[in-house]
Amino acid sequence: MPTGLPKANSSVAPDDQGWLWTQIKAEARRDAELEPALASYLYSTILSHSSLVRSLSFHLGNKLCSSTLLSTLLYDLFLNAFSFDPSLCSAAVADLRAARERDPACVSYSHCLLNYKGFLACQAHRVAHLLWRQSRQPLALALHSRIADVFAVDIHPAARIGKGILFDHATGVVVGETAVIGNNVSILHHVTLGGTGKVGGDRHPKIGDGVLIGAGATILGNIKIGEGAKVGAGSVVLIDVPPQTTAVGNPARLVGGKEKPSKHEDVPGESMDHTSFISEWSDYII
Amino acid sequence: MPTGLPKANSSVAPDDQGWLWTQIKAEARRDAELEPALASYLYSTILSHSSLVRSLSFHLGNKLCSSTLLSTLLYDLFLNAFSFDPSLCSAAVADLRAARERDPACVSYSHCLLNYKGFLACQAHRVAHLLWRQSRQPLALALHSRIADVFAVDIHPAARIGKGILFDHATGVVVGETAVIGNNVSILHHVTLGGTGKVGGDRHPKIGDGVLIGAGATILGNIKIGEGAKVGAGSVVLIDVPPQTTAVGNPARLVGGKEKPSKHEDVPGESMDHTSFISEWSDYII
Amino acid sequence: MPTGLPKANSSVAPDDQGWLWTQIKAEARRDAELEPALASYLYSTILSHSSLVRSLSFHLGNKLCSSTLLSTLLYDLFLNAFSFDPSLCSAAVADLRAARERDPACVSYSHCLLNYKGFLACQAHRVAHLLWRQSRQPLALALHSRIADVFAVDIHPAARIGKGILFDHATGVVVGETAVIGNNVSILHHVTLGGTGKVGGDRHPKIGDGVLIGAGATILGNIKIGEGAKVGAGSVVLIDVPPQTTAVGNPARLVGGKEKPSKHEDVPGESMDHTSFISEWSDYII
Amino acid sequence: MPTGLPKANSSVAPDDQGWLWTQIKAEARRDAELEPALASYLYSTILSHSSLVRSLSFHLGNKLCSSTLLSTLLYDLFLNAFSFDPSLCSAAVADLRAARERDPACVSYSHCLLNYKGFLACQAHRVAHLLWRQSRQPLALALHSRIADVFAVDIHPAARIGKGILFDHATGVVVGETAVIGNNVSILHHVTLGGTGKVGGDRHPKIGDGVLIGAGATILGNIKIGEGAKVGAGSVVLIDVPPQTTAVGNPARLVGGKEKPSKHEDVPGESMDHTSFISEWSDYII
Amino acid sequence: MPTGLPKANSSVAPDDQGWLWTQIKAEARRDAELEPALASYLYSTILSHSSLVRSLSFHLGNKLCSSTLLSTLLYDLFLNAFSFDPSLCSAAVADLRAARERDPACVSYSHCLLNYKGFLACQAHRVAHLLWRQSRQPLALALHSRIADVFAVDIHPAARIGKGILFDHATGVVVGETAVIGNNVSILHHVTLGGTGKVGGDRHPKIGDGVLIGAGATILGNIKIGEGAKVGAGSVVLIDVPPQTTAVGNPARLVGGKEKPSKHEDVPGESMDHTSFISEWSDYII
Amino acid sequence: MPTGLPKANSSVAPDDQGWLWTQIKAEARRDAELEPALASYLYSTILSHSSLVRSLSFHLGNKLCSSTLLSTLLYDLFLNAFSFDPSLCSAAVADLRAARERDPACVSYSHCLLNYKGFLACQAHRVAHLLWRQSRQPLALALHSRIADVFAVDIHPAARIGKGILFDHATGVVVGETAVIGNNVSILHHVTLGGTGKVGGDRHPKIGDGVLIGAGATILGNIKIGEGAKVGAGSVVLIDVPPQTTAVGNPARLVGGKEKPSKHEDVPGESMDHTSFISEWSDYII
Repeated sequence: MPTGLPKANSSVAPDDQGWLWTQIKAEARRDAELEPALASYLYSTILSHSSLVRSLSFHLGNKLCSSTLLSTLLYDLFLNAFSFDPSLCSAAVADLRAARERDPACVSYSHCLLNYKGFLACQAHRVAHLLWRQSRQPLALALHSRIADVFAVDIHPAARIGKGILFDHATGVVVGETAVIGNNVSILHHVTLGGTGKVGGDRHPKIGDGVLIGAGATILGNIKIGEGAKVGAGSVVLIDVPPQTTAVGNPARLVGGKEKPSKHEDVPGESMDHTSFISEWSDYII
Repeated sequence: MPTGLPKANSSVAPDDQGWLWTQIKAEARRDAELEPALASYLYSTILSHSSLVRSLSFHLGNKLCSSTLLSTLLYDLFLNAFSFDPSLCSAAVADLRAARERDPACVSYSHCLLNYKGFLACQAHRVAHLLWRQSRQPLALALHSRIADVFAVDIHPAARIGKGILFDHATGVVVGETAVIGNNVSILHHVTLGGTGKVGGDRHPKIGDGVLIGAGATILGNIKIGEGAKVGAGSVVLIDVPPQTTAVGNPARLVGGKEKPSKHEDVPGESMDHTSFISEWSDYII
Repeated sequence: MPTGLPKANSSVAPDDQGWLWTQIKAEARRDAELEPALASYLYSTILSHSSLVRSLSFHLGNKLCSSTLLSTLLYDLFLNAFSFDPSLCSAAVADLRAARERDPACVSYSHCLLNYKGFLACQAHRVAHLLWRQSRQPLALALHSRIADVFAVDIHPAARIGKGILFDHATGVVVGETAVIGNNVSILHHVTLGGTGKVGGDRHPKIGDGVLIGAGATILGNIKIGEGAKVGAGSVVLIDVPPQTTAVGNPARLVGGKEKPSKHEDVPGESMDHTSFISEWSDYII
Repeated sequence: MPTGLPKANSSVAPDDQGWLWTQIKAEARRDAELEPALASYLYSTILSHSSLVRSLSFHLGNKLCSSTLLSTLLYDLFLNAFSFDPSLCSAAVADLRAARERDPACVSYSHCLLNYKGFLACQAHRVAHLLWRQSRQPLALALHSRIADVFAVDIHPAARIGKGILFDHATGVVVGETAVIGNNVSILHHVTLGGTGKVGGDRHPKIGDGVLIGAGATILGNIKIGEGAKVGAGSVVLIDVPPQTTAVGNPARLVGGKEKPSKHEDVPGESMDHTSFISEWSDYII
Repeated sequence: MPTGLPKANSSVAPDDQGWLWTQIKAEARRDAELEPALASYLYSTILSHSSLVRSLSFHLGNKLCSSTLLSTLLYDLFLNAFSFDPSLCSAAVADLRAARERDPACVSYSHCLLNYKGFLACQAHRVAHLLWRQSRQPLALALHSRIADVFAVDIHPAARIGKGILFDHATGVVVGETAVIGNNVSILHHVTLGGTGKVGGDRHPKIGDGVLIGAGATILGNIKIGEGAKVGAGSVVLIDVPPQTTAVGNPARLVGGKEKPSKHEDVPGESMDHTSFISEWSDYII
Repeated sequence: MPTGLPKANSSVAPDDQGWLWTQIKAEARRDAELEPALASYLYSTILSHSSLVRSLSFHLGNKLCSSTLLSTLLYDLFLNAFSFDPSLCSAAVADLRAARERDPACVSYSHCLLNYKGFLACQAHRVAHLLWRQSRQPLALALHSRIADVFAVDIHPAARIGKGILFDHATGVVVGETAVIGNNVSILHHVTLGGTGKVGGDRHPKIGDGVLIGAGATILGNIKIGEGAKVGAGSVVLIDVPPQTTAVGNPARLVGGKEKPSKHEDVPGESMDHTSFISEWSDYII
C-alpha cells in the first residue's frame, strides 16, 4: 500500500516525459490538420505550449475556473505546483499511460489529456493534495469544490493516490478524506470509497496496488482491499477483501466462497477483467 | 435491434415536426407572458428561432461551449449536422414525444427541450455519432467530452441509439463504444451499459426495442437485453435477458425464475412500470 | 413527517443567524489572511456582503448562471425569495449546522457555505420550491435545470424538504416530484427517491425525520421510510421501512429479520452511523 | 451655475417617472413583437424589470462588469445608489427627455436607455459621484475607470453635473475633477473640459445652464462658459465666454467681435443650433 | 455621389473574392506556423472557416457580443445578412484592398481582417444599414450601439457608405444619419460628419468619391465635399468644398484661396497625401 | 531623442521597484479595509501577487483578453516579456511615478496601476514593441488590436517610447509606426502622431524629451518636436517645433512669433503647464 510515494512501475524517467509530450503534440498536429474546426482548440490546449506541464495547467485552469476563481489564478496555481513537485508530472505521465493501455476506447494520449474527466480530475486532485500537505486547506478545499462541480468527481484533498491510476468515465466517484489508493489501480465510475459516520479519524478504505473496482461499487470504512483484488460492479463492501480475490454482490461475497476464495493471477487493475468471474458466481441464475 | 436506422414508431412526418414546433412556441409564448423574468431566456432559446433545429442548435451551442470551444463554433457544427442528416431532427421529435408521454413530471414539450439534460445530451450525442461515422473522431470525442462534463452523461460517440428514447434524470448514465440501444427505450439515471475489460471489439450491451432500465442498473458485456424486457433499479446484469421478462437484483435474477420467467405483455420502455414486479419478487421480504 | 413546515429542531432564532454569520465572516477573514490567493474569492463571496442571505444569493447567482440566464437575474431572484420567506434562511442555517456537526470533513461553516454542492443545491432548491408554490412553474423548472446541470443534483421543485438536511457529497442525488423529506435527515450521494412509472399523482417516497440514507440507495414509490430508520448503502427499497429499523441489500431486507427487526435508539440522520449493522447482517460473509 | 442641485426644468415628479417607464416598456414591447431576434435582449434589459431604476441598474451592471468586477456587485452598487438618492433617477429621466427632444436621431426613450453611451456613462458617473461624496474614492475611481474603458467617456467622479444633459455620441468626452456642468447642457463628442497643469485645486471649466458645446471643442482652465453660450465645434477656449454669445475657432473668438459680440435669444443647449453662426463668422471664406 | 450602389472600381468579381480568401488563408497559415501562441486565434477566426463571409461573421459575432446579445445570435445575423446581400461581401473585399493599398502599416490582408477596427466597424455598419433599409430599426440600432461601444466608431445605421473605404485608426469617427460617403474615400480617426441641430431631415455631409479627410476634421451640415477633395487634419468645415480642392484650418479655408483654389490631379482618397499642401498654406508660419 | 534606451531620470533601481511595490500593496490594503465591496478586486489584481510584474501581467491579461484570445495566454505572454526584458518593469515604474507627480487627480500609485488606461495601454504597448523587435509581428499586431479596442489607444507596435511617460486620459491617442517619443513626455488625449500618406518609410513625428502635447493636438509627418517644447491643445503641427518653444493653433504658430519665439525654462512634460501661454497668444481675443 502506498504511503504517499508510489514504488513499482511509477518512476517515469524525464526522457519518457519528453517522448510522451512529443507524441501528444504529434497526435494533436495530425488532428488539427484533419479537422480545422478543432485546430483552434488543439493549438490553445496543446500545440501552443512548450511542455506537458504548461499544457495541463492551461487546460485545467480553463476547465476549472469560474466567475469568482479566475483562470489566470488557477493557471498560476497549477504551474507553481507542477514546478514545486516534479512527481506530479511523472504521476500524470503514468496515468496517461494507464488510460492508453487499459481503456480500449482511449485512441490516443492527447484524447486522454484533453477529454478524460477522470484523468483531469485526478491531476487537479494531486495539486489540491499538495496544497493540503502544505497546510493550505482553504485553497485545497476551494479547488476540490471546483473539481466536484465541473467533473462530478469528489476526491477529498487529503486522500492519497498513487500512480498509474485510471478513473474510467469517472462521473460520480467519491473518495473520502483518509482513503488511500495504491499504484496501478483502476476505478470505474460511481465508485465510493466512503467513511463510517460522524466520527473523525482514519475511517476510509485503503486500496492496494493493482486493484480493480467495478462501476458503482461502494466500499465503506477503514478496510483493506488487498493487492490485486477485484470488486465487482455494484458491490457493497464493508469488510476487508484479501489480495488477489474477487468480491461481488450486495452485500459482497468472495467468489469461490469465504473459506477458500478463488485466487486469480493477473493484476486486475491492469488487465481490467470485469466479468470473467461470472461463471463462478454460483447463484447468478438468469 | 436497430442497425442504426430505427423502424417502428420512428418515422416522424415533417408535418409532425411542424406541429410540434408550433406547440413549443405556443408554450414558450405563454410562459414568457406569465413570467417576465424568464421571457428573455425563452426568446433567446426558442421564440427568436425559425425552427426546432435552430433552437436546439442554439441551446446546445450555448450549453456545451467552453472558453476553448466557442458557442459559435458549436452552433455551426450543430446546424450543419442537422442540415446534413434530417433524421437527427425526427429523432429529436420522437424523443420529445417520449418524454412528454412517459414522464408525468414533464409538463410541456418546451420544458423538455430546454431543461432535460437527458434529452439534450442525447441530441448532442447524435451529432457526435454522425461525426464519428464521418471519420471525424477527434471532433466527436471533443464533443463527447463536453457532454460528459456539462450533463454528466457519458455516451461514447460510436454508440448507436434509436428513436423515442427517454433518458430520465440522466445524471451518471454511461454508454460504451459498442453499445446499441433500440427504439422506444427508457433508461433511468446512473445506468451503465459497460464493457468487459481492456480488450477492444464488440464488448457492450445491446438493448432491444421497448426496454426499460431502472435507476442505477449496471449492464456489462456484449449481452442482449431482449425486446420489451425490464431491468430493475440497482440490478447488475452480466447475462442475456430474454424478451418481455424482468431481471432484478445484484446479481440479477429473472422474476418468476430462470426456467419459466414471468412474461409481461406491455412495452415497459413506454409504460414505465418500475415496480409492479415487487409482489412477484419472492425473496423481497421487508 | 413534514407537511412542508418543519417542526422540531428547526426554529432558528434570528440571534442564531447573527452568530453564525459573524462566525462565517471570522473564518473567511482568517482564511483570507493566511491565503492571499484565495482572498479575492473570499471577499467577493462572503466578506463584501452584509448578511448570509446576500452572500448566499451572490454565490448561487454566480454558480448557477449561464449565458442565457444571467447572474444578475438569478441574484435578484434569490434575494427576493429570501426576503419574501425568512424561513428559507433559517433552513439554510440549520443545514449549515447539520453539515458542521455530522460531517467530520466539514472544517468550518464557511467551507460548507462555499464548497458543499449538496448544501448549495438544497438552498437553490428551496427557492425553486417557493416559486413552484407560487405557481411560477416555468421559472422553478428552469432553476431546477440549472441546479441539475451545475451540481448534478436533481431535486424536483415540487419536492418538500425539511430543515437540518445534509446532502453529503450529493452528486447524483435524484428526488422526485411528490417526495417529502423530513427534518434532520442525512442523505448520501447517488441516492434516488424515485417514482413508479408513467402515471402521475403521489408516487414518490416519504422520508421521516432523522433518517439516514446510505450512498447509492434507491428508494422507489410512494412508500414510507419511518422516523429514525436507516437505509444501507446500495440498497433498493420498494416497501415501507418501519421507524428506527435498518434496511439493507438489493432487494432490501430488514436487519434482524422481517418479523422482529432490530431497533436502534439513536437518530441515524444525526449520528451518521453507516456501518454498525454489519455484524448483524447475517449473510454478509466475506 | 449649479451647486450640485439643479433648479430649472429639472424637478421630475414621480408621476412623470411613472409615465416614462410605462412609455419605455410600451416601446420595448412593440419592438420585441416586431423583432423576435431582439426580444430576448429587450426582456432582459427592460421588460423583466419592475422599474426604470432596476432596468438601468441591470443594464449598467452588465455593460460595465469585467472579469474582476462582477456584474452582480455592480448591479448591487447601482441599486443601492438609486435607492439612497432618488435624485439620481429624476436626473436620468430628465436626461432621457433631453435626448428625445434634442436629438432627431433618437427615435424612442428605450433607444436612448439601451443604446446611448453618453446617457449610460452619465448615469454611471452620477453613481460614481455619489460614492465620491460619500468618501468612497477607491470605489468611485474603479467605476470611473470602467466607464472610461467601456464607453470611452472619461468624467472624473468629483465633477458635478446638472440635469437634462445630452452627451451626444459621447466618445472621447473628458471632464476634469473640478468641472461643473449646469442644467440642460448639450455636449457633443470629443469635448474636453480640462485642467491647467500639475497643480491641484479648482482648475476646470464651469459650464452654465443651457450651454451647447460642439464636437471636438477643448475648454481648458477654471473659466466660465456663461449661461446659454455656444462653443463651436473644434474650438479651443481658454478664457471666459459671456452668456448668450458664441465662441468659435482655434483660438476661439466671439462671433460679432470681442467688444460687441452677437447675442442670441435661444437656449442653444436645447435648440442644438450648431451652425447658424456661420454667416456671421466673418473670416470663414471657403 | 453614391446612391447606395457604388459604381467605379467597386465591382468585385467572385473570382477576386476567391483569390483574396485564398491569400488570407495562406497568410494566416504562415503566421500560425511561425507563432504557435497565435495559432489558436488564427484557426478560430480564419483557418477553420470555409469562406470570407463565415470568417468575418464569426469574428464580428465574437467581437460585438455582450452578456445580453449573445455571439451566436450575432453570428446568425451576420451570416444571414451576407447571404441575403452579396454586395456586402464585395464591399468588404474592396475595403480590404483599400487598406492594403493605401496604408503602409497594413502588412497583410489578414492583418486588416482581424485587427483593423475601422474595417470591422464598417462591415458591421453595412449589416446594420441593411437592417435599417429592411425597416428593422431596433435591431439596427442595437447593433450600432455595440459597434460604438466596442470600436468607438459611431456610424448611424441609416448612413450610406460606398466601397473601397479606409477608416484608418477609426477611433472616434462619428457619421450622422443622413450622411453619404462615396467610393474610394479615406477617412482618418476622430472625423465627424455631423448634423446641424435638433431638426430632422437631410442634415449631414455628402462626401464625394475619392475624398481624403484628415484626422480630427469636423464636417457639419448638409454640405458637399466634392469628388477628389481633401480636408486637412483638424479642419472645421461648414460650407461646400469644390472637387479636387483642399480645405484646411479652423474655420477651413481653401488652399490657394477662395477665388482660385489650387486643384490637384490625384485622387487623395487613394494617394493618401496628407501634407503636401503645407508649402501652399500661406499663413503657416512656424 | 531616445534610441530605444532612455537616459535621463529613467534608471530605476531595483530598490526603487521594491519600495513602489510595497507602497502599492499598502495602498491597496488600506482601500480593501475601507471598502469591502472593492476588496475582492484589490486582492485579485494586487494583493494576491508577489510582484509588480505579476500584478500587472494579471491585470493586463484580464483587461485585454477576448473570447478568442484567452486571459491565460496573454498572462503568460506578459509574464514572459517582463521576465525577458527587465527594462519593461523599470519603465512601468517610471510611468507610475510620472502619473503620480504630474497629474493632480492621481491620488495613489495603485489608482494609476489599476485604472489609468493610458498607463495600461503604454505597458501593453511596450510588450507589443518587444514582440515586434523579436520579429513576432503577427502577435504584436494582435496585441495592438486588443489595446486599441479596449483602451481606444492606438500605438503601432513599432513605435519607440521612452520612460516616464504620462498618457493622460489617453482615449483616442494614435501613434504611428515610425514615431519616437522621448523620456518624460506628457501627452494628453486625442493626440495624433500621424504619417503623411501611403508611402512607407520613416514618416512619423519624433518627440523630444520633456515635451508636453495638449489635448487633441495633431502632429503629422517626420518632423521634430524639440526637447522641452510645448504643443497647445487642438493644434495642427506639420513643421518642426524648436526646443523649449510653444506651438499653438491650427495651423500651429510659435508663441512669440516665428523669428524670435518665446523660450520657456521649465520642462513642460513635467510641469504640465497647459495654459500660461495664453496671455502671449496675440490674437486670442475673446
